[in-house]
Amino acid sequence: MTCSNASPLHHVIYQFFFATYSLFQILCDLGAPRINFFKLKKNKTINPGFFKKRIVESYTVGDYLINQLYKLGVRHVFGIPGDYVLGLYSQLTKSKIKIVNTCDEQGAGFAADAYARVRGIGAVCITYCVGGLKVLNTTAEAYAEKSPVIVISGAPGISERKKSPLLHHKVRDYSTQLDLFNHVTVATTVLDDETTASSEIDRVLSAALRYKMPVYIEVPRDMIYKTLASKSVRQFSTTDSDLSAKKEAVQEASIMINSSKKPVVVAGVEIQRFGLQNLLLEFLEKTNIPVVSTPLSKSVLDENHPSYLGVYEGSMGFPEVKKYVESNDCAILLGTFMTDIDFGNSLTPIDEGTTINATSLKLTIKHHIYEGVTLQDFLTALNDTKLKQFQSISVKRKTFQKFQTSELSKITVDRLFQRLNNFITSKNIVIADVGDALFGGLDLFIHKGSEFLSPAFYLSMGFAIPACIGAQLADSDLRPIVIVGDGAFQMTGMELATVVKENLNPIVILLNNDGYRTERSLLDGSFNDIFKWKYSKVTELLGRGRSYVVETEGQFETALKEAEKISKDFVLIEVLLDKFDGSAALKRLTASLSKKI
Amino acid sequence: MTCSNASPLHHVIYQFFFATYSLFQILCDLGAPRINFFKLKKNKTINPGFFKKRIVESYTVGDYLINQLYKLGVRHVFGIPGDYVLGLYSQLTKSKIKIVNTCDEQGAGFAADAYARVRGIGAVCITYCVGGLKVLNTTAEAYAEKSPVIVISGAPGISERKKSPLLHHKVRDYSTQLDLFNHVTVATTVLDDETTASSEIDRVLSAALRYKMPVYIEVPRDMIYKTLASKSVRQFSTTDSDLSAKKEAVQEASIMINSSKKPVVVAGVEIQRFGLQNLLLEFLEKTNIPVVSTPLSKSVLDENHPSYLGVYEGSMGFPEVKKYVESNDCAILLGTFMTDIDFGNSLTPIDEGTTINATSLKLTIKHHIYEGVTLQDFLTALNDTKLKQFQSISVKRKTFQKFQTSELSKITVDRLFQRLNNFITSKNIVIADVGDALFGGLDLFIHKGSEFLSPAFYLSMGFAIPACIGAQLADSDLRPIVIVGDGAFQMTGMELATVVKENLNPIVILLNNDGYRTERSLLDGSFNDIFKWKYSKVTELLGRGRSYVVETEGQFETALKEAEKISKDFVLIEVLLDKFDGSAALKRLTASLSKKI
Repeated sequence: MTCSNASPLHHVIYQFFFATYSLFQILCDLGAPRINFFKLKKNKTINPGFFKKRIVESYTVGDYLINQLYKLGVRHVFGIPGDYVLGLYSQLTKSKIKIVNTCDEQGAGFAADAYARVRGIGAVCITYCVGGLKVLNTTAEAYAEKSPVIVISGAPGISERKKSPLLHHKVRDYSTQLDLFNHVTVATTVLDDETTASSEIDRVLSAALRYKMPVYIEVPRDMIYKTLASKSVRQFSTTDSDLSAKKEAVQEASIMINSSKKPVVVAGVEIQRFGLQNLLLEFLEKTNIPVVSTPLSKSVLDENHPSYLGVYEGSMGFPEVKKYVESNDCAILLGTFMTDIDFGNSLTPIDEGTTINATSLKLTIKHHIYEGVTLQDFLTALNDTKLKQFQSISVKRKTFQKFQTSELSKITVDRLFQRLNNFITSKNIVIADVGDALFGGLDLFIHKGSEFLSPAFYLSMGFAIPACIGAQLADSDLRPIVIVGDGAFQMTGMELATVVKENLNPIVILLNNDGYRTERSLLDGSFNDIFKWKYSKVTELLGRGRSYVVETEGQFETALKEAEKISKDFVLIEVLLDKFDGSAALKRLTASLSKKI
Repeated sequence: MTCSNASPLHHVIYQFFFATYSLFQILCDLGAPRINFFKLKKNKTINPGFFKKRIVESYTVGDYLINQLYKLGVRHVFGIPGDYVLGLYSQLTKSKIKIVNTCDEQGAGFAADAYARVRGIGAVCITYCVGGLKVLNTTAEAYAEKSPVIVISGAPGISERKKSPLLHHKVRDYSTQLDLFNHVTVATTVLDDETTASSEIDRVLSAALRYKMPVYIEVPRDMIYKTLASKSVRQFSTTDSDLSAKKEAVQEASIMINSSKKPVVVAGVEIQRFGLQNLLLEFLEKTNIPVVSTPLSKSVLDENHPSYLGVYEGSMGFPEVKKYVESNDCAILLGTFMTDIDFGNSLTPIDEGTTINATSLKLTIKHHIYEGVTLQDFLTALNDTKLKQFQSISVKRKTFQKFQTSELSKITVDRLFQRLNNFITSKNIVIADVGDALFGGLDLFIHKGSEFLSPAFYLSMGFAIPACIGAQLADSDLRPIVIVGDGAFQMTGMELATVVKENLNPIVILLNNDGYRTERSLLDGSFNDIFKWKYSKVTELLGRGRSYVVETEGQFETALKEAEKISKDFVLIEVLLDKFDGSAALKRLTASLSKKI
């Protein structure tokens, strides 16, 4: 085992600022909604109709935007400055929101996405096109996986755009960036008029909260300091469901549930995004129906819950869970996306004819659709209905045995995850990048809700390192355990510089299997090889952090134990794995995927 | 001065392969068009009508695409594999085109753009959405600055898309990626039908060559191995101009030129992109009219040419050049974009009433437009017309004095560029990233044509390091001199891993001024500070290359001299600059830009 160390003396100073800052944050939080649903007695998601009457005349466009973001819980904005956005950056520095500069805009996009997943809202603020287009992929990820990221872009001033001159960063015309973001967001606006700016900001932010999806706000630089010209009295309709439709649907659903013998709940990611965990728990308590999560919704509820069977992953997953779910006679899908990865790359094995499928947008029972009945209203009404209480069942869940280190044995992926399973506590958040970091990670036991983050559907590599910045800033109580492959690390791993700058302390487990491991099982070739960095030297490049290179179980054990003691710095543990080693889940998934290459 | 060294023994093996590979490349090139216009007697741009009749029945869709790319001069394709594109990668490995894996797709996009600028065509090949959307920004750059990059994306198979299931990487629907690329390319296609695939490939590639702009080809994975179903007999119209319009236009232009007293030619970037340098030289020789380039077209002609005055950069540039250009009585703009950076962020100082503005798409004389008269045809016809020969003029050009190292003096940006100006030879290509790397770099004296690369209009940071990979693979005779700021280096600098993997040997001059220097002059704040890496340690992280940290002129001198001797590896020279040091050009530009913040 080698160990590189770089821990400078100015830690003490950092420590002081960190403590002061945390205190400041706590004080701030007292006055702002914080998304931590397990502490709530009743669901308290932010009501999209919260923007009522306000006096806005004293605000500038920039200040109003910043103020609304702050009200919604935004405390950090991620991004990189550029001339078109400098005015807004300058206003941000005067606000209670902190700007977090990343190395590249891509890192800012991933960080904001993770922040939104943990905190209920996140924001990225970048310059026109050369910044904006670099976060298009991360915004698409937020769209695909429902994460309310507010994309704020500086832009050439309205007065500069006349006659469409070739100002720097322009692509085709001045609507190009807006046109692009229209494809990957639920609402967009260009703040080109001070008489409508406040209502436009409210409209777009409301959409982000209502749909839990990304939105786009473009701020021409000559608008930032303009004073809002009128009171905004715009009111937004709430998302109440159609009452008659809801009544009919709940009646039909309750009959289906009460007459079933082997129902199962598939708890999807919308339960977490819309903050409906309490409603879910109430339903489970009332009915005793067994529940599974999916890869995308892993950790949607406490994995200790007596009704919880595990992650359902189709043929990729644990056979007993698969068997139970697929032999149901009434599947209750709550906020679930039916993705290929969620179903282990198999066709959906759930029979529509016996399924209740409720999402934030519509409710489907068997083969018919109730438009305008939302997940939240449906679940609330279901909890108010008489439902049968089922007998508790006991399904054999995947559990790791107690781990016994075999000191000199070369470490394998399976053994690594077994060991990690004993290492993780309720004080951690696990962040898995794409590949075996995710597939192997799905078997980890997560103690509380919402503490497993991964782009399990969109599968964009390079998520994990920048995401840990967003996640830990969103909830400083959690120490991130980041699991990342060597391929993904080469994409965004240098955002560890931002980790250091922000004084964060993730433990990064780098699975070094010498290339793109998942693809090796699909179709191998020299294109799956990557140039081997001496990853542990990153601590020397950054002048901070601690790194370990491990090959045996004993070395891994030592590194983990030391990592626990290092609380003020990031720790990188590079695990040298066999090139073809992989988790059982990976092997099952790729066996099925490779048929389509 | 500190120096880190890492030069492993396996260089000898690399050397052997490199030599063999170079020989192979030379042999390949004998049969393929190579864009090196200074060696051509007459203009030989690829004729968009070159796709005539071919027998295509024996090809698969994938092979046909690869074959057409090869015919057009593509020898390297940049990208990262993913499951939807693995089949195409596998076919590529069996072809004469080499796959160059980068660390992140962004790097592949920049590399392909630089490759296209040097070689006349470039290609990036990535997987669906998670790959494609990461190259959207680099494709926008290629669009804005006219670089014919072929974007090839794998995608879910047509048969998999039925009923629009949630296959991984999907954003909104299966047309989302296509819709996005429609905004940043001149032609797109999805190869969803084997009876039209060959003509679709030809149509889209022709558009790239005709307009010198990026295009998008999506290959659903179940189409790759399909055999083309019919002979393609599609013929493409050539871009011949309207003869009568051309005649009238040339007559009008020649009268304007002949009756002027102080004409000036502004040679734009289209001269390089369309390979019209010989036509330009012929025109200059015939008329003796003085010529300037712009930041975007710098090095469009040999800067030794007797008629060449220098780079015209408006108020950012050298006053004598500005004065001469702005006092013209007949401006002849040849393939010029009128960008804000080209004109030093001032309104165009050129009087439309006395201007001839010829581009690849249209010709404008004074205030009227001749549609359908192309730059190439116009210039050819002008050269065949009787034109007055003007008297040679002598304008004081910006020249660097002979450089005398002041051993112990702290190095400044101005002195650094002075020294570099004496260092660069005709065997180098200078690649400047955004910021003072570009603004200062514009004053460098470039010996041959086309050996200065920079995104001088789109200004996307992070271009230079990945671009040097593309540029040197496109022309292995040139050793890149990369000039990059610390901010840009943090974005894509780790692509030095790809530099090492491909055995390239750029000299990287890293201007470390501790943050976003250009923005400091516009509006300063803590957001312009970046976390300081120990950049020289990158050689340890990669286990290759040589690095220097310099602060004085003497140290810089020593580092340059050693860099000259190291021919098999990259060299990184980190220059520690004062935080507020900057070139004269930067200061003039930012003084003008800051008024708009």
